Amino acid sequence: MPAGSGYRVCVVGLGSMGMGAAVSCARAGLATCGIDLDEGRRKAFAEQGAEAVADCVAKLPKPINAVVVLVVNAAQARQALLGEKGVAHALEKGASVMLSCTQSSDDAKALANELEALGLHVLDAPVSGGPVKAADGEMTVMASGPKQAFEALKPVLDATTSSVYEIGEEIGLGSTVKIIHQLLAGVHIAAGAEAMALAAKAGIPLDIMYDVVTHAAGNSWMFENRMKHVVEGDYKPRSAVNIFVKDLGLVTDTGRSLKFPLPLASTAYGMFLGASNAGYGGLDDSAVIKTFAGIELPEGK
Amino acid sequence: MPAGSGYRVCVVGLGSMGMGAAVSCARAGLATCGIDLDEGRRKAFAEQGAEAVADCVAKLPKPINAVVVLVVNAAQARQALLGEKGVAHALEKGASVMLSCTQSSDDAKALANELEALGLHVLDAPVSGGPVKAADGEMTVMASGPKQAFEALKPVLDATTSSVYEIGEEIGLGSTVKIIHQLLAGVHIAAGAEAMALAAKAGIPLDIMYDVVTHAAGNSWMFENRMKHVVEGDYKPRSAVNIFVKDLGLVTDTGRSLKFPLPLASTAYGMFLGASNAGYGGLDDSAVIKTFAGIELPEGK
Repeated sequence: MPAGSGYRVCVVGLGSMGMGAAVSCARAGLATCGIDLDEGRRKAFAEQGAEAVADCVAKLPKPINAVVVLVVNAAQARQALLGEKGVAHALEKGASVMLSCTQSSDDAKALANELEALGLHVLDAPVSGGPVKAADGEMTVMASGPKQAFEALKPVLDATTSSVYEIGEEIGLGSTVKIIHQLLAGVHIAAGAEAMALAAKAGIPLDIMYDVVTHAAGNSWMFENRMKHVVEGDYKPRSAVNIFVKDLGLVTDTGRSLKFPLPLASTAYGMFLGASNAGYGGLDDSAVIKTFAGIELPEGK
Repeated sequence: MPAGSGYRVCVVGLGSMGMGAAVSCARAGLATCGIDLDEGRRKAFAEQGAEAVADCVAKLPKPINAVVVLVVNAAQARQALLGEKGVAHALEKGASVMLSCTQSSDDAKALANELEALGLHVLDAPVSGGPVKAADGEMTVMASGPKQAFEALKPVLDATTSSVYEIGEEIGLGSTVKIIHQLLAGVHIAAGAEAMALAAKAGIPLDIMYDVVTHAAGNSWMFENRMKHVVEGDYKPRSAVNIFVKDLGLVTDTGRSLKFPLPLASTAYGMFLGASNAGYGGLDDSAVIKTFAGIELPEGK
């Protein structure tokens, strides 16, 4: 259904990714509602094109054609959709749900089964790209599910993404691809921190080290993005240490479930756990570098 | 001294990087000689613009203004420069030596001290970028040393590099930056292998996994370059597993020498050692993925 012809989308979870997705839907001309428990976030979206915002679906206009779930984890997704006052109970048959939180393949399958039993189309569709790309309507989506679900959610996918990878028809594959992606993202942040910490210990100016790596074969997207925060001494959270405690936890769960060894992911998981345990869980994920003792790091201005 | 005015450079070691550097020097109009023990490599450079090639410096025209050392390790560099028939003994005072192999900071310092005692200018100047960039005269150099050494080697740097990072005046800093760069490069290859192995185990088509990662925040230069070999099942060595056994060995040596923990580098080092021990040492470094049992990987055509 094209934008402007009465297609209403409801974004559940107005965090950094959810807000970007919601604003992108509104900008594309979709009637866009937002649900979040936090009043400040609801107000922020109300000022950026929302048709309506609320703390639960009962207070929103109907019918809702599509729901995008961008809460933090599987438990929140289940609660938001199927719990008391859950969004799914307010949907008509044939409406569609895009499950975009990062969760295990098993959790995605279980949730999709229950939603499909209510007559809903479900896409297992985790996202990537970070808040800036989300705000620009340029998320990357790695999705699996029935063709019908892809079609029903096309207006939302068009509004919020620059790339949609169709992994297959089986719910769970999308989540697995996202989890494997997070394995790389998490290891790359931790490796960047380890390298920059060693540079600090060896007396290499960190701005030069950053410059060399970002222009050579040792670069990664995460190194370039996150180690800039270290060079600038700015640990204001864009994505927090605890997000990778969660995501690398899902990675190691996946390895355990498949009985498959993940030596680097397990090591990086330990590093993020160490950072969280040391009190840095709410800081930017680049703060994993603070677990290395005996070095001086740049301080923010 | 500008190209064409009698500046003669001698490249020692005509492997993948050395050949690229040598051909780039010749292409830039420098009189370029090559030394290698392998007749095939000497012949290859003779056909690509060499003024002369030989297995030792005695058979080459003189005077030699600059020497670029691109052998595999510190022991070879020492042997090639200061051993019997060593190149350094054939140089006049004021000639310059660019030490471009990957070696420890301590080895670079010791070698530079002896060369400087002979009246030579020395640059601690490891390189990066891979054979393709080397062939195009677009290596990245991370160099430290006296200003005079930078000036004396300017024609060579101009011919062979697209970026020269001046880390400082102290010999050893360049090598340390390269080693830290290799920490990232090695961890990124091993992480790419771990992620693709997990994808194979989970039933994700590897070409889709590759496509997702290379368009998202989990990407790294090494993932994009090396995991393509895995997708294509092509383990013809561009850079071999054993190179990273050596380089990550230098990384862990550096950590031990500074009493600094390197959890990810140590783990990746173990993975490359495992690959070498399993008989894959001479294959492309992406063959580290072959140490994961119980998965089916694409086979080359």
